[in-house]
Amino acid sequence: MSDIAGHIDANYDDFLSELKDFLRIQSISTESGFAEPTRQCAEFVADKVRALGFSGVEVIATEGNPMVVGEHTQQPGAPTLLVYGHYDVQSVDPLELWTDPPFEPTERDGRLYARGAIDDKGQVHMHLKALETRLKGGSGLPVNVKLVIEGEEEVGSSNLEGFLRTHADRLACDAVVISDTGMLAADCPSIGTGLRGIAYLDVIVTGPAGDLHSGSYGGAVVNPANALATMIAALRDADGKVTVPGFYDAVRPMTEAEKAQVAGLPFSEEEFLEEVGASALGGEAGFSTLERVGYRPTLDVNGMISGFTGDGSKTVLPSKASAKISMRLVPDQDPDDIADRFTAYFKSLAPSGVSVQVVMSHGGHPWAADPDRPIYEAAAAALETVFGKPPVYIREGGSIPIVSLFEEVFEAPVLLLGFALPGCNAHAPDEWIDLGIYRKGIETIAHFYDEVAARGV
Amino acid sequence: MSDIAGHIDANYDDFLSELKDFLRIQSISTESGFAEPTRQCAEFVADKVRALGFSGVEVIATEGNPMVVGEHTQQPGAPTLLVYGHYDVQSVDPLELWTDPPFEPTERDGRLYARGAIDDKGQVHMHLKALETRLKGGSGLPVNVKLVIEGEEEVGSSNLEGFLRTHADRLACDAVVISDTGMLAADCPSIGTGLRGIAYLDVIVTGPAGDLHSGSYGGAVVNPANALATMIAALRDADGKVTVPGFYDAVRPMTEAEKAQVAGLPFSEEEFLEEVGASALGGEAGFSTLERVGYRPTLDVNGMISGFTGDGSKTVLPSKASAKISMRLVPDQDPDDIADRFTAYFKSLAPSGVSVQVVMSHGGHPWAADPDRPIYEAAAAALETVFGKPPVYIREGGSIPIVSLFEEVFEAPVLLLGFALPGCNAHAPDEWIDLGIYRKGIETIAHFYDEVAARGV
Repeated sequence: MSDIAGHIDANYDDFLSELKDFLRIQSISTESGFAEPTRQCAEFVADKVRALGFSGVEVIATEGNPMVVGEHTQQPGAPTLLVYGHYDVQSVDPLELWTDPPFEPTERDGRLYARGAIDDKGQVHMHLKALETRLKGGSGLPVNVKLVIEGEEEVGSSNLEGFLRTHADRLACDAVVISDTGMLAADCPSIGTGLRGIAYLDVIVTGPAGDLHSGSYGGAVVNPANALATMIAALRDADGKVTVPGFYDAVRPMTEAEKAQVAGLPFSEEEFLEEVGASALGGEAGFSTLERVGYRPTLDVNGMISGFTGDGSKTVLPSKASAKISMRLVPDQDPDDIADRFTAYFKSLAPSGVSVQVVMSHGGHPWAADPDRPIYEAAAAALETVFGKPPVYIREGGSIPIVSLFEEVFEAPVLLLGFALPGCNAHAPDEWIDLGIYRKGIETIAHFYDEVAARGV
Repeated sequence: MSDIAGHIDANYDDFLSELKDFLRIQSISTESGFAEPTRQCAEFVADKVRALGFSGVEVIATEGNPMVVGEHTQQPGAPTLLVYGHYDVQSVDPLELWTDPPFEPTERDGRLYARGAIDDKGQVHMHLKALETRLKGGSGLPVNVKLVIEGEEEVGSSNLEGFLRTHADRLACDAVVISDTGMLAADCPSIGTGLRGIAYLDVIVTGPAGDLHSGSYGGAVVNPANALATMIAALRDADGKVTVPGFYDAVRPMTEAEKAQVAGLPFSEEEFLEEVGASALGGEAGFSTLERVGYRPTLDVNGMISGFTGDGSKTVLPSKASAKISMRLVPDQDPDDIADRFTAYFKSLAPSGVSVQVVMSHGGHPWAADPDRPIYEAAAAALETVFGKPPVYIREGGSIPIVSLFEEVFEAPVLLLGFALPGCNAHAPDEWIDLGIYRKGIETIAHFYDEVAARGV
């Protein structure tokens, strides 16, 4: 144990310096124009994995951004873990809201700020440095580890399924470990036991063939911006319930045990509100904040645009209005089914005089874990060793659509061992990672190998 | 009479060439960054007025864009007309929808395409060329004419009121003539007898302090984009009536005579629909298209923006959502009163968890004419001479907020003698003027002086 902590302490400056190099690469997958830095980022990861002494390290092209794979499998009979992460990041828009440039990692008050700091480069890097700590620190790696680090998580992982199926033998494993989720608080180690799925759609409402003068035509021509607003408004009722017919049909009702478990979590509504920076919280009637985020589906407008949006005023009746709308899903909602229901209902809401186009952008299945497996006990033990207290089990509101896919392809349990803190600004300006947690994450993962070797998966 | 038509024919190519020069000047008032070309445009107009032999021609600075004034008052005892127009133009956004560059006037199929072609440079130019036809063509000017051509009509004419009051003596007149409105059809000369007013507001709905991950927070945090859509939707009911309390209190109900007059206008719903390019028309229940545009107030979203609006998808819960909303008003609605009512009601619609800011951008009073005055008969006679048929009397849906102001300051009737054709794309890409109407407009105005001299105002 002292070997692990000692190696991390001795090499921490180098770890941090390398993390910053990783974060400087503009591997944005959500916008066109970043294919080359994204490819360079894959090579960066592969170089670091090779340096660990892994074999079969390759950057494998796909129809989109490439995959990085490699393995260290020198413990016949010991469990094999497949570690998944992603090196691609979200758009940095709106850039003007960043305190420092998003690709110039900046340390402030124990945090490192940069796009991808926590989602997911920082967490991928914890795994790389935990492996380095064992492999270079003298204590050795008591399990087998394979890595698959992709570059399209932020755009729906569209090439991952084909890749996993094609390389299923090479990547065969006993359990899958993903560090792309969060902790309830810095002193509250957490294991994820559920994720929401997603159905993300683009909607376009078109009225007149071109923009019109709002004076000469206003009142007699159906305005697509007014229509879009009215259609969006009709998607939820006064209780915050989604009105798409059949939307809740497949939702598993919360059990009394789940309600009790959630109620017992160390969660402060006040702190959450402060973190959010709004004047009040809100959502589906009859559920608490943690229930709303973890156990209930929802519908949000992610973006909306129509007409004249510049400075000043323009008396235009716009020709088009469009929105990006996503629904977060819970077990057992199916994203394709929900997208179909949404599309039919949304089109039915259109007044005559406008046409409606709905395009599914991406979808992902919700997921819930079986927390009685040994691998969950192994993770709990490692977290308790490093954080000094046992973890809590939480359901994340976010989506990692590929969790269900891994379970299915490898017939293996998936462990969500996440280290993002509340308010870390994933997907938003000023994304950050807590450097104390970064260090503890490396140490936890380094211990976790021993626990898995002892307990199995 | 032959003098007038002959002079126009002989000089038409020069007229058109000069109009194109006028249209090439980027006198956009609705965006910052165009102050210098806008000032140059005022100088251009002043030069042309000076060349007519007007006296007292000046470009007079204001806190915004300058005014151009001048007068030709050599007929003591004859009526004095004050001609008002504007040399500023709307934004050209969205630029990509223009067939040709907006400031490179292009002739196609008897039309001249350019920003400002009809609104209002083309119509200002008709007056200048009618004056030239009389003053240079040998027939002389039988009335007194003063000009005031401003540069801020498209941004609410904010400096005009002060200017008119300050220079009320210099600009004193018996009637005001404004050519900034339209005709029902190319073979249907029209006189405007009413205009809608306007109250234009910017609304901003703010929720969380920054953009949030829509997975981690969606369902528990009030989304300002969802909220804005719901608030906008609540501004009108299923019958298309505006729900702002008291909105219709001051609206004059249509009389039976007005309903009969509107029903008798040569108007084709089918042609209007084709011109608009939508699949159907719509609006306030219980009113025809011409009634909706001319006699009824309305509420339109002119622009709306929130969250991520680029290519691809971003799972963001936006911090802010904003819209530009304008209400077209009819007699006797007051723009300030309506803005106050809107603001109070709109704020009352906000769910807890968001804050709402409402800022009035500009306002203008509605107006209705007294068509029994001699100046209307004079205009009708001139139109009939040139077009071969008597004019129709129409109410325009657009706003010229300063019409009421002129009436009040000069205690004089206002004549709306407009030449814009339906579908002319004022405020939209591919704005155009019909060149046949341009020529007839010059000829009409040149005859109008004789009719006014004979009949009075």
